[in-house]
This record gives sequence, C-alpha cells and structure tokens, in this order.
Amino acid sequence: MPLISRWTDQWLLSQVQKGIGVAPVRLAVKGGPSVARAGVAPVATVVIQDSKTLRKLVQDPEVNFGDAYTDGRVEVEGDLVRFLEVVYEAMESSAASGRWYSRLASQWLDFWQDNTLRGSRNNIHRHYDLGNDFYKLWLDDRMLYTCAYFPTPSSSLEEAQVAKMDHVCRKLRLQTGETVVEAGCGWGAFALHMAREYGVKVKAFNVSHEQIVFARERARDEGLSQQVEFIEDDYRNISGKFDVFASVGMLEHVGVHHYEELSRIIHRSIGDSGRGLLHFIGKNYPSMFSRWIRKQIFPGAYTPSLKEALTILEPLNYSVNDVENLRLHYAKTLEHWLERFERTKHQIAAMYDVRFVRAWRLYLAGSLAAFRCGNLQLFQVLFTGSRCQPIFWTRDPLYAGAKPAPEKAKWMHAMS
Amino acid sequence: MPLISRWTDQWLLSQVQKGIGVAPVRLAVKGGPSVARAGVAPVATVVIQDSKTLRKLVQDPEVNFGDAYTDGRVEVEGDLVRFLEVVYEAMESSAASGRWYSRLASQWLDFWQDNTLRGSRNNIHRHYDLGNDFYKLWLDDRMLYTCAYFPTPSSSLEEAQVAKMDHVCRKLRLQTGETVVEAGCGWGAFALHMAREYGVKVKAFNVSHEQIVFARERARDEGLSQQVEFIEDDYRNISGKFDVFASVGMLEHVGVHHYEELSRIIHRSIGDSGRGLLHFIGKNYPSMFSRWIRKQIFPGAYTPSLKEALTILEPLNYSVNDVENLRLHYAKTLEHWLERFERTKHQIAAMYDVRFVRAWRLYLAGSLAAFRCGNLQLFQVLFTGSRCQPIFWTRDPLYAGAKPAPEKAKWMHAMS
Repeated sequence: MPLISRWTDQWLLSQVQKGIGVAPVRLAVKGGPSVARAGVAPVATVVIQDSKTLRKLVQDPEVNFGDAYTDGRVEVEGDLVRFLEVVYEAMESSAASGRWYSRLASQWLDFWQDNTLRGSRNNIHRHYDLGNDFYKLWLDDRMLYTCAYFPTPSSSLEEAQVAKMDHVCRKLRLQTGETVVEAGCGWGAFALHMAREYGVKVKAFNVSHEQIVFARERARDEGLSQQVEFIEDDYRNISGKFDVFASVGMLEHVGVHHYEELSRIIHRSIGDSGRGLLHFIGKNYPSMFSRWIRKQIFPGAYTPSLKEALTILEPLNYSVNDVENLRLHYAKTLEHWLERFERTKHQIAAMYDVRFVRAWRLYLAGSLAAFRCGNLQLFQVLFTGSRCQPIFWTRDPLYAGAKPAPEKAKWMHAMS
Repeated sequence: MPLISRWTDQWLLSQVQKGIGVAPVRLAVKGGPSVARAGVAPVATVVIQDSKTLRKLVQDPEVNFGDAYTDGRVEVEGDLVRFLEVVYEAMESSAASGRWYSRLASQWLDFWQDNTLRGSRNNIHRHYDLGNDFYKLWLDDRMLYTCAYFPTPSSSLEEAQVAKMDHVCRKLRLQTGETVVEAGCGWGAFALHMAREYGVKVKAFNVSHEQIVFARERARDEGLSQQVEFIEDDYRNISGKFDVFASVGMLEHVGVHHYEELSRIIHRSIGDSGRGLLHFIGKNYPSMFSRWIRKQIFPGAYTPSLKEALTILEPLNYSVNDVENLRLHYAKTLEHWLERFERTKHQIAAMYDVRFVRAWRLYLAGSLAAFRCGNLQLFQVLFTGSRCQPIFWTRDPLYAGAKPAPEKAKWMHAMS
C-alpha cells in the first residue's frame, strides 16, 4: 500500500473513530493501518475491506455500516452485540448536545416516510411476509414476534411468551364473554390465547396476508373460529364496539403523524367505558430509529417516547393506570431469537442468501444491544376510559396468586 | 316574594343549572323557586340564601360557590361528596367541547401565579403553616399529608401511610448506606422512615418553617439527627450528589413553568446513574385546578397531566420504569381525613372559625369527589438515569415477599 494511501486511510479511520466517541473499539483497514482508543482493551476489531468502503463509512456511517456489513465488506471480529453496545453508549453520550438535530431529522424522516393505508401495507409486506417458514426457524413455537415476559431470567422463551400473554390479560382483567379488538395481531397467537384461556371474543386486525392466512388456519385447527375473527385490514378500518382495545407491537408501525387517527379509532372502539393496553418499543426521548433499519429492515417504523405515545390517550380524557418498562425482557427475548437464528443460519442462507443472514444478524444483534444499554425501551401502557369501572385496587392480582400459565395448547400439537 | 323576583330567580336558577349539565341536583332559593332535572331523584338540594348570592353564582360559579358555601350563604342538603361527584361528572361531559378554553385559562392562570422562590414560600406558608395542632387533629399519627396506600380498602389510615412509605422505598430499592434527597418533606415522616427502616442518609428540603421545626424535633427524639438533615429551603437550592431523588406531593406546588428548572435540579442531584420517584396529583389532560381552591386553599398549585410531568424527565434521557395510578387510594385517604375532620370540627372552629371549617370541608369533600370520579389522578413515576444499574427484573419484589410494615416507631410514643 503506497504511503499516501496509508496516510489517507489513517486519517479516514480517525474520522470514523470520532463518530463513535470513546467506544473501546479497534478499527482497521484490511492489510492497512488501524486505530484504537489508547489505554483500553478493545471489545472488538472492525475490519474494513478496502479504502472505498472506508470512505463510505465516513460519508454516512449510519446507513453504510449496515450495508457494508451485509455485503461482507466489513467484518466485526469479536462479540458483535458487545461491540454494538459500546458504540451505542458512546454515541449516546456524544448525541446529548446534538439532540435538536436528532429531533429535527426524526421529524423530517417521519414526514417523508409513508404510513398511509397503502404505504403501511407495503411496509408490513416487506417485513412480515418474508415467509412463515423463515420466522418458524427462530421464533418460539407459538410464533410471537414481540417482547416476552420472563418470570425469571432463566425461563424458556416458550414459557416467557405465554407469561407475557397472561401478564397482559391480567392487566386488562379480561372476563369471560367480553369483546376485544386487537390491532396488529401477528400470526394470531395472542388473539387465540385470549379467546382460549379467558373466554373472550376477539376481532383481530393485520395487513400482513401471510400472517392472517396462518392465523385463520390456527383458529380452525383449534376450533376457535367462532370466537376469533381474523381480519386482513388496516387498524384504521376497525369498526364495531368492544370492551377492550389491545395492541401488542403495532404502534411502532403507525408513525407519529397518525397518532391522532389511532386515538380516534380507539375511542370509536371502546368509548369512555372501555379499557386498553398499548405494548410498544419506545425511547427515552424523541429520536429517529436507525436509518439503516428503516431502509433495510423496517420501512415506516417509528419508536416514540412515552410522552409522545401519551398524545394518543390525553385527548380522550383516558386515565393511564399502569406503565411498565420491560426493556430487559426484550433484551432477553432477543438473546433467544439471535441464538436460534445463528443455529439455523445455513437453512436461512439456503432460503435467501448470505447477505440476508448478515443483515438480519446485524438487526437482531443491534436491537439486543439497544435494549441492553437503554437506547430502546419497551412500554406497556394500561389505560381506561373516563367512565370505566372498576379499576385495580392494587397490582397484587398481577403477582400473588396470579393464574398459572396454561398448559401447552392443543393447536400446537395440531401444527407440528 | 314579588312575582317578578320569583321569575328572575327562576331564570337565574336555570342558568346555574345549565352550567352543571345533567347532574341530578335540586337548586332552590330559600323561600323561593327551585329547579331540578326531571325524571331523576336529586342526590342533594342546594339551598341558596338569597337572590344576591344566586346572581353571584351565575356570574362566576367556580369561585363564588366556594365562597358562598364558606359564608353559609349556600347550604348543601344531602351528601356533600356525592353532590360534588355528580356535578364534576356532569361538568366533565360538558367540558369536552370547551377544553381549548380550559387549557388557555390554565396557562394564563399559571403564568399569573407566582411560583418563584419568594412566591412559593408565601404559597406554602399560607397552607402548611396553619398550625401543626390543626393538622394533628385529622391526619394519621405520623402526620403524612399525601395519598396513602391501602393494602386492602379496610386497612386503617395509619397502616396505609406506612404501607405507602414502604411501597415507595421498595420501588426505589433503597439500600443501606445510600444517600437520598427529598424535595418537599412535609413534617418529616417519610425522611425518618427511610433512614430508620432502610438505613439511608437523607437530606430533606421544605420551605414551611413550622413543618421543618417539627421534623427536626422528631429527628432528635428518634436519635436520627445524624442520618436525616432537615433543611428549610426551596427545592431549587438543593445541592450535593445523591443516589436517589424522592419527592412525594411537592410537584403540585412547582408550577408547570418551573419544570425545566426542576429537571436541572434532579440531574444535578443524581446525574445519569441515579434513580428517583415523583409522587403527585395529576390529571388526564392539562386543565386548571379549581380557581376557588387556588384562591382560598392552595395558592400556586398546578396538577399536571402525566404527559406534562414527563417534560421533566425526557430532556435528561431518563427512563420511566414504572407508573402507578393510585387515585382510588387518594379517595380512600380523603375519606379518612374528612371523617376525622368532621369528628374534630368543633375544636377546629374554636381554633379558627366556622367559616374556616366550612371552607376546609368543601376542599376535602371536593378532592374526595374528584379522585372518586377520576377528575384527579395520583401518579407515582419511577425513573432511572441512563447509566443506572441495575433495574427491576419484574415488579414481583414490590408484592410477593415484600418487607412487612415496620412496627410502630419509637418517636410516636415520644410524641404522645
């Protein structure tokens, strides 16, 4: 390598290093120079394939790191999750001063992104219609693609997903014979759980065709088709009156400019005497979701701060009864997913390609790191209409003497 | 009464009735006409002394009802609390359309009210320095003037106040040897409880002279003066570094325009690795506190919506870990206070006068009604700095196997 190129690369590396602040990371160009924070052992070494890739990292690290990693033009030698954690933590510290910019960029991106009826359908299609066989490889056997609730850190993913559903049902105090509308129902596990275990009638909405087809099949297999109706439609087209509004992991796809619309839909569904729960990935303060994630993994996604999310409830004169932050549980959930993903990576590569595996590994590892270090939060917000009676006296019923997790259900055997 | 006066009064009564919407209440002028909602049994009859009082009620019911009740120019025959409940509920329904006005008025009043250092001292002095002997008559024996936590609705007020303190300490996970700053410490009961039962060192701030003198005496009696320092000063003058920031029932006196200041104080006190709890009376959406209450009982008070309160935490990149709404517990607390107040009303009248008794009865009954029907909320917001470790895995430790309530403490015997 000519000396002038070495110097240029050295300078470019130092520019990349500035962006990640004090993170204990070594950055190296393959066969070329490297930089590292003095006095600390690096948690990982980022090996950059060539000068061209390095230049791209300087230009737009947020998007180009992900793309270069996907293409194999960047390798992370060492613990990928730990590497992402220290980078996030370092960026968080240096981001404090630039937060106004972050906010502005977030608003601009949100304006630009498409959360209309058609846009949402496309966004959801790109992620959730990748093929049920793919998700079956690394999700739990009930196929829940949202944060689980681990009674203890050593609970299994399967136990934790059931515990999560029961935790939400207990918060909502579901009673036999009540009606529930679920906005964004994934593959239907939660709707079926509510119907089977709590005796409620559920109308569940989702715009993902593959998921709805799958969910309907399950309902039939379980003999729950009379109790659970799966509707392939947007949350904006929810109609009817219900006792309960539940949404687990959909708010991230709504977009902050559509909260007013969602607010109206909730009120139309449960009025002043209903109750509901929003379970969603959030942030400590408004800021944009990684642009790479939005470009390659989750088009149209926005994770609000708790305060932003409350703009949905405040105009309705709804009371917030309970907010729980389960970010450590999402980190644990992602540990399980990532482990299962790695275990089946050859199958996944055969279904798609190696680039797909690398992109998804980065997304799962990045999410895990973000929940671990507090860049992302997981909020469950329980709310009641102004005329809703009764409400919890204390939260004891969620804990002491809580209904035990139901046995492995029939449909699981039917499916396997 | 001449016919023309009857007609005028009848018309004025109908105007008052319009303001309280569908509330099942009878309104009557003494020896004159009356109005009532047709087809429902009234829960109470409001007897208005004369036409002059009636005219004032039409002009400005919010302030003049309270003043007229205080003076005995208005009597409520029937259940005062139930009467206030149905009026609040009816006003809430009719207020939905006028909410923009309510918001504007609230902002204007808040701008006008004085929450500066000097203003706050005056505001607090007017309420909390009424005399410890007065508060001793109707508060619990530890003298806590904030929402209690009733393990069951039939728990005693004394049990419930201790349970509240333990509930907060558990949420904060206090550990022996840690340091706590308390903003607004009342008569010192919570600071002493934390020190005595959890082995922490506390610096407790309050601008009420009478309360601080009382609290210091207690600390001496209990031999806790080394562990608890009571400082007669404003929360804005808090200095030093602490593990924990706790504030139970002070935010109501801060004023929404001073939240940015409070935010800075919290960050200065516990940095990015601390944790804290705000316990405060809130609302479902921003709206003004009754102007009568602000004029006669609580100058400078403002009860924020949860979303407004989060403006304190969001700029700090703090995580909200837990929000609990205890409004039913405040209703229960107020039931106890009101009952004890009524039991000692003759003593109170002898200390002040009958007008004072009537004004305070209306304030206590009005607060009870507001918490019962959801016009007021009680939020406990637990938060952690972005570098705070560890946080709760689940909330089980608050419930199962929670530390039992400590025995009646020594200082109580010393005092009695």
